[in-house]
This record gives sequence, structure tokens and C-alpha cells, in this order.
Amino acid sequence: MSLRPLEPSLVPPAEIARRLTLLQQRLQALELDAALVLQNADLYYFTGTVQDGVLMVPAEAPPLFFVRRSLSRAGEEGRIAEVIPYRAYSEIPRLAEERGWRRLARLGLELDVLPVTLYQRLQKAFPAADMVDLSMEIRVLRTRKSSWEVEAIRAAAAISARMAARLAAVAREGMTEVELAAEVEAEARRAGHQGQVRFRRFNQESFYGHLLAGPHSAVPAFLDSPTGGRGPYPAVGHGASFRPIRRGEPILLDLVGACHGYYADMTRTFVLGEAQDEVLRAYAAVRAIWEVARDTLRPGIPAGAVFAAAAAAAADLGYGEIFMRSGEGQLSYVGHGVGLEIDEIPFLARGFEMPLEEGMVLAVEPKLTLPQVGVIGLEDTFLVTAKAAEALTEVPRDLTVLQP
Amino acid sequence: MSLRPLEPSLVPPAEIARRLTLLQQRLQALELDAALVLQNADLYYFTGTVQDGVLMVPAEAPPLFFVRRSLSRAGEEGRIAEVIPYRAYSEIPRLAEERGWRRLARLGLELDVLPVTLYQRLQKAFPAADMVDLSMEIRVLRTRKSSWEVEAIRAAAAISARMAARLAAVAREGMTEVELAAEVEAEARRAGHQGQVRFRRFNQESFYGHLLAGPHSAVPAFLDSPTGGRGPYPAVGHGASFRPIRRGEPILLDLVGACHGYYADMTRTFVLGEAQDEVLRAYAAVRAIWEVARDTLRPGIPAGAVFAAAAAAAADLGYGEIFMRSGEGQLSYVGHGVGLEIDEIPFLARGFEMPLEEGMVLAVEPKLTLPQVGVIGLEDTFLVTAKAAEALTEVPRDLTVLQP
Repeated sequence: MSLRPLEPSLVPPAEIARRLTLLQQRLQALELDAALVLQNADLYYFTGTVQDGVLMVPAEAPPLFFVRRSLSRAGEEGRIAEVIPYRAYSEIPRLAEERGWRRLARLGLELDVLPVTLYQRLQKAFPAADMVDLSMEIRVLRTRKSSWEVEAIRAAAAISARMAARLAAVAREGMTEVELAAEVEAEARRAGHQGQVRFRRFNQESFYGHLLAGPHSAVPAFLDSPTGGRGPYPAVGHGASFRPIRRGEPILLDLVGACHGYYADMTRTFVLGEAQDEVLRAYAAVRAIWEVARDTLRPGIPAGAVFAAAAAAAADLGYGEIFMRSGEGQLSYVGHGVGLEIDEIPFLARGFEMPLEEGMVLAVEPKLTLPQVGVIGLEDTFLVTAKAAEALTEVPRDLTVLQP
Repeated sequence: MSLRPLEPSLVPPAEIARRLTLLQQRLQALELDAALVLQNADLYYFTGTVQDGVLMVPAEAPPLFFVRRSLSRAGEEGRIAEVIPYRAYSEIPRLAEERGWRRLARLGLELDVLPVTLYQRLQKAFPAADMVDLSMEIRVLRTRKSSWEVEAIRAAAAISARMAARLAAVAREGMTEVELAAEVEAEARRAGHQGQVRFRRFNQESFYGHLLAGPHSAVPAFLDSPTGGRGPYPAVGHGASFRPIRRGEPILLDLVGACHGYYADMTRTFVLGEAQDEVLRAYAAVRAIWEVARDTLRPGIPAGAVFAAAAAAAADLGYGEIFMRSGEGQLSYVGHGVGLEIDEIPFLARGFEMPLEEGMVLAVEPKLTLPQVGVIGLEDTFLVTAKAAEALTEVPRDLTVLQP
């Protein structure tokens, strides 16, 4: 079975069943009676569909999917046998009780994403329940990708490849970053890009990702990301701008391929005309850091050790001060998990001790910020296997010099 | 002073000063010591920039902008004189106290958008403070647009016009919805579209909006919206799909123009080849409902009365059962506020009693769901003035028949 862009596919029932079983094992271990799942990415993960509803997963009984809308789609796309209409959260305890579910004293919720007032409505609906944060458990469950999920990420990577090819074909001196982005984004859509890119963390947002050129690519921004960019307007505050791209400056393509809900995160660096020696040297260093980081991606290695190895390599190469931004904005970070959200755990960041495991999918994105020149970077999305890291993004990794 | 797409502009200092004064008046009236503002759209509204930080607005003293990053951009783009670096929320009380701010016993926060665990960190940072929900106050403040904001929405409407023109130029029989969207979206970007479209409500999401054709446009979805659509993949669950557009079926262009952080929401209906009588009749009805709704947009009218008038007109015309979806999914709603978020109050919805005021900007979007045919709609973004509603979106409002 193979997943492709442009070919919508339902999540196989066995996928959902396995995920729910793993969640139930965690609920039992934590002595929770049930999980309530509401957020779009998590709902898709555990049901196979995104509807306006609440998935209740009892620790020891089949799940109940309470749906406001759309009931018909919850039934057609979703893999939960019991779909129950409701209008207000306050009805849910009674509806659950009618189906034999009385024991709802300890509930696990996605407290990292649920807004306070929505949470308060849930507390009111379950006045006797003790509500605890289940978000880290869900995020940990989601770190280990199945082969079906890896296929979805490969399909997204095929879109990344189309974006890189399109950039190489159409980039010209004098185009603005946004004009170039328009062409690349349209190609992504024709290739089956889903549009929506989901972040988990509050206030993090991105539109495809970053297409930035020259010194402007080094403009800092609010994001937890090694690139910022001026953005089109202060209200957006990062990403492509209306600045024309000039000959000789690095063009950073850091866009997200996306289909079947999954992402592939990839960065490639291009130059129009001729690359300065400084850029070539920095690119060779980035490539070397990328190799060091890739070679550390093994089951059992703490996520933070990947950052440590990459940072040590950057320092050895004389680029320690401009590795992952510079000055006040420097990050102790070189990558992140990728799946149904673009900012999944584990973070390949200082102090993040979660050990890597087989089946994790991680973006590794070493970047150097050359003052007055711009950001030089290389990023691939890797699958951690028993023996080696397998790159799911497969575009050639050389610095690409284009005709201006 | 006029705002245009493609020309980034800082928010005038007088705008920010006026907004902060109004917020402080509300804080005083509510006997709150200060507001803490964190969410991107609100931060932009009250500071002129989007950075990773916390804006503290004391009820009776100048605001303090605590910024993690980027400090430099907070200073360059933002209009808050006092920008203070911090690393953790727990430092904020001390930093505020050093600047003379001791009285922080009652704080107002955006509890409708702050995630629970983030809120808990703030509670820990201010252990003695009573924290109350200020979100509705902020949302109400934001309903009345200044002339500068109206200019920003006009600029966004210019992008909407470019999208409609592009659709008319390139739509062909057999293109898929996503292929057509790719062309229209690229045109939007070339015209200065900012990319990001912000929703306030949990789990609401949209990528440009909806470009849907034929019966597929009537597929329901999880969104609080009169259209859904199949979407490209179940993981997205709404919007354009890979279904080819056929001759004679209605094509609904419901996309969002966006620049300077502001939106223009507009819908136009197109047909390739020839429109069936059923479509022409429904379109005439939509146009009539649109006129009825527009004529109710007057200061002092409760928002819900606009819905009531539109629904009555739909019923009189024989379309009551398919007005704003049909069956289980039917909405008691005909529009919404538009500004820095696409789902602003007031909602033109049953039971929403907030009176309209001069300066409010509202999208009115009557839509009819013809079974087996599709959704027929017309939507404009209006400015409420003392005398009449002024359409800020100016594309001709006829059903457009295109060569297939």
C-alpha cells in the first residue's frame, strides 16, 4: 500500500485500533478513567477524521465519538464505530452514561492546547471529575510513526521536491521573495499540497514556511525557528517579503510539503549567478554539520545529544557563533519531530533528554546566519531506523547555482 | 493616508495610543489593575508588532512590553516605549515592580485563547493575582474600526478583486478545484496577499477560504461556516478538492483577501458554459437576500436582527429550508465581523444581541445549498456608517458565466 499526493485516502482501521490500544494502555497505567480528545490533529490521529466533536476514550472500553458536525462525515471517514450526536458539552456525561459509562472520575485532556474558557465549560460538564493534562502522553504516542504514516510523509516529500524544482526553474534576479513564493506555492498546490500546516504551540504560525533571500533572511522574528524574515507586513512578522532577490545572495527554500495531514520539512539553498567564497565555505560547513547530526540519529540517543553533536561540529568549523541564529536570538536547537504537526517532539535541543526511537521522524535543519549575507541552510526529514537515519526528503543536497 | 497591498506600513502611533486608552478605560471600569495580552492578533492590535512577549497594560500607567524575541523588532515596529527583555513569565512581576508596578492583584487575560498549561504558568508567576477573562472586552474594543483599519480592509479587498478576476480568466472545464485554487492563490500572492489568515476560535482553520464547485460544495464540514467542501484529504476536512469542475455547475469563490493583518471576505458565484434555470433563480434569490441584509446594517440594530431579516427573506422566496446549509447542518447565521481575525464579533446570528455601531466591519454572506447542484452565494464586507452600509469589496455582483 502506497500513499501519494492527489489521492485522498482513509486511515486504515488497523492504524486507528493500534493507536487507541496504546492510548488505553497509558490511561490504565496512569489510573485515568478516560481521555477526552478535542484538538484537530489529535482527533484525526485517533479517529481518522476531523469533525467538531469530542472523542471519549475510556481506559477499558470502546471509544465514543460525540459529534456536533458533521455526523455524516464522522461516519464515512472516521473509524470509530459509536458516533453520538450532541449539542453541548453538558450532555456528554448523560449520553456516556446511557451507553454504560459511569466511571468518569479521572479524565485526561489536551491541556497544552485547550483554551481556558473551553476547559472551564468541560469542567462544568463534568463537575465531579479530576482533570489532568494528557497532552505529553498523546504527543509521545504520536512520535513513533507507523509505516503508513511514513508513507504519508514520503508523499509530502514528493511535494517538497516539486517545490524545489519549481524554484530552480523560475527564480530570476529582481523577483521579490513573495513573487517567487507565489510560483512555488502554486506548484505545491498542483502537486497536491493540502494547504493547512498545523502547529501545536500557542501563537506559532507559518504559511508554507520560509522562502527568504539575502541579508533579509537573517531578520529575527517571534517564531521558535532558526529563520525569521521580515515578512510581507508587520502584522505577519516573518516569512517572505516584497524585497527583490539579488544576484549572488543565498536563497533559502524552507517550505513544508503537506498531504494526508502529514508534513515533510526540507530546506535547500540556491544562489542566482555566482556564489561568493564565503557562501560556499559556509555551505560546506552546513553540509558537514548535517552529516554529523544525521549520523547521531540512532535509537537510544537522547534528542539533546543530536544538538550537542551539531553544535560541537559548528564550533569546530569556526561557525559556533552564527549557528542557529546569532546573538540574543541564538537557539540551542537543531531540529524537531514531524508528523501531523510541524512542531512535534522530540526537539533536538539542549536539555531535551527524550531518547530517540525507531520510527520517529525528525527534521534536522542546521543553519548558519552570515552577517550581511544571509542564512545558509540544509534540512531533511529523517526516519530513525535500527541501523541508520533514512532521509525521506530526497532532493540533491548541493548548493544550487542558478542562472540569474 | 492610504494603505495599499505590497506596501508594508507601520501602525500609526496615534492608533495604538487610542486603542490603549480605550482598553485602560475598560480596565478602570472593571476595577482591574492591568491587562496581560499575549495572543498574536491582540498583540498586533495593541502594540503594532507581533513578537514573542507579554504586553502589560496597567489601568492607570503606560504599558510595559515584555519581549523574549525579537527585541529589536519590538522596538522598530512596535509603538510601546517601554520594551523589557525577559526569559520566563516568573520574572515579569519583579521586572514590573522595578518600574513602579506593585498593584497587580486583579488581572485581565485573553482566557478564550490562552491554553490551559500556559495559563497555569502565568498563575504561578502571579500567585496572588485574581485572573479574570478580558477576552470579550478586547473583542468588543476591536469591533469598531478606525479609518486606518478601514483602509487596510480596502487594501485587502483589492486583493479579493484580483482573485475574482484571475478565476474568471483561467477557469476551465476539467480543472480540479485545487488546480483552479493554485492559480487564484498565486495571483493573490502576487497582488500582496499576506498568506496567514487568523481565526480566533479553537480548531477553526482555513487556507485562503473555500473554492468549491458543484454538488461537492454542499459537503458538510466541521467548520462554523455555511460552506464545507470535501477538502483535499480527510485530514483537512474542508475546502477545495481534487474533483474536476464540470460545465454548468456553480463555482463558489469564497476566499479571503489579506494584507496589513486585515481581511476582506468576499464570495462570488461563477458558472462555466450555461447556468441552469434553477441556478439563476437561486442566484436572484441570494441577491435579494443580500440586499435585505445590507439594508438592515444600521447603527443600533441588534446583530441577530440582520440574520432574522435575511432568513425571513429566504423563507419568503421559498428557500428557507436550504438557506445557510440544510438539514442537521443548517446555521442560524448570515455573517460575522471582520478585522484582524476572520471570525470577529458581532456574529450576525440568531440570539446575538450586540447592537451594530458605526465603524463596525461585517461580512454578509447569504448562501443557498441546492441539493445535487451546489452552493450559490454572494458575500461582501461592509462598513457600517451612520446612514448606510458601504461595501468595501467592490467586484460586480452578477452571477458570472464563463467560457468553458
